[in-house]
Amino acid sequence: MTSTLVWVIYDISDDKQRNRVAKLCKAKGLQRVQKSAFLGKLPSNRIDELALQCGEVIDASTDSVFLFPLCADDFRRVKTLGLAFDPRYVNDEVISAFF
Amino acid sequence: MTSTLVWVIYDISDDKQRNRVAKLCKAKGLQRVQKSAFLGKLPSNRIDELALQCGEVIDASTDSVFLFPLCADDFRRVKTLGLAFDPRYVNDEVISAFF
Repeated sequence: MTSTLVWVIYDISDDKQRNRVAKLCKAKGLQRVQKSAFLGKLPSNRIDELALQCGEVIDASTDSVFLFPLCADDFRRVKTLGLAFDPRYVNDEVISAFF
Repeated sequence: MTSTLVWVIYDISDDKQRNRVAKLCKAKGLQRVQKSAFLGKLPSNRIDELALQCGEVIDASTDSVFLFPLCADDFRRVKTLGLAFDPRYVNDEVISAFF
């Protein structure tokens, strides 16, 4: 199955729940680029699976998760400002592999 | 110029700076869907302009802003969980107009 570039961005208030979502993203092989953002390539059924798993972890009344599966053109058009790539989590070499 | 669907998602710690970014998004005609997310249609030069303006407002050492200009196919593939659409900011009618 073809893989798709996907951004996962979340806003989760509870540390434990945020860590669980981060672990789910890591388990799928995504790369953490920030405290609240992951990036990687996944087949679409794995993206669906990840969304379901995240949905089970978060508090839907306070937290949010966005998953953006992007075609190559849209991926290049994403604009990131400020600490979108946090050097505490990711280095330039890893970032450049995506672009 | 053709307009593009765009998601703007930010993580800005300072209330004043966050409000300023929200105002910039509103001034461009985007719809607030959450405390930290806007959605709308903009020509690509206005998206570039918005990115520049946001870059001037945020603290690049602590804050982040993501702008996702999406083609119609990718727009439909976005997955939102939990409070991605916050009823304090947006109602179902407005949301359904996008989909």
